Amino acid sequence: MPIIDHIGIAVNSLGAALPLYEAILGIPASGTETVESEGVRVAFFGTGAGRVELLEPLGPDSPLARFLERRGGGLHHICLAVPDLDEAIRRAGRAGARLIEPAVRGGADGARVAFLHPRSTDGVLLELRETATREPLDDA
Amino acid sequence: MPIIDHIGIAVNSLGAALPLYEAILGIPASGTETVESEGVRVAFFGTGAGRVELLEPLGPDSPLARFLERRGGGLHHICLAVPDLDEAIRRAGRAGARLIEPAVRGGADGARVAFLHPRSTDGVLLELRETATREPLDDA
Repeated sequence: MPIIDHIGIAVNSLGAALPLYEAILGIPASGTETVESEGVRVAFFGTGAGRVELLEPLGPDSPLARFLERRGGGLHHICLAVPDLDEAIRRAGRAGARLIEPAVRGGADGARVAFLHPRSTDGVLLELRETATREPLDDA
Repeated sequence: MPIIDHIGIAVNSLGAALPLYEAILGIPASGTETVESEGVRVAFFGTGAGRVELLEPLGPDSPLARFLERRGGGLHHICLAVPDLDEAIRRAGRAGARLIEPAVRGGADGARVAFLHPRSTDGVLLELRETATREPLDDA
């Protein structure tokens, strides 16, 4: 099973960053998408597991804008693929990690995701994404 | 072709970090390895493309120790798989990125790798790793 679902990279401007990744990878980004709820515009390279996601803030109030102001551009989060999200959260909790929000969320494509707080994971914003097929969440 | 070869995560202590990733992923790390030349001890999760690498500094003079002091633990570098390293470096250069060291290096397993400087890539330490089979480097 692939371990990495995707890796998120914070950039100040997709327009400036896309040409570099297109140059390195030799492929175009697979389109861009605006996620209003997160205050970001994103572009992906690749499909399926192991994608690279570039994230640009929609405005100065976006949490991503604050990340960029505090730390500058760079690696932002890693999303690990887990077969059973609830079980992974339970095990992570026993290892000392805690969720940023108590609830499991429905991602853009209906997958169940949860975020672990960087303060509980040695500084890494860890997204967990369930790979198994499930009943969709009500709020997905 | 997989895009991500591996993602490197800086940790203060492998002993403290390993249990969390073992808990989330439900698999043990595939052993640890000391890389004296880089001043790190590393552990991998997974095999092949899409591995997760945890890096612990060997001592206070390791570049990784300075990274941890300056930024704390967290995502450290991303290694992208490229079919032709020289061509990828040329294209990245035209897109404004520059190498940390001018020379291409031989990695632990003989693969050809190069690092792009974070100042030229919007803050991301980008390792490029050639996937094609080549003559080994003299210094590999």
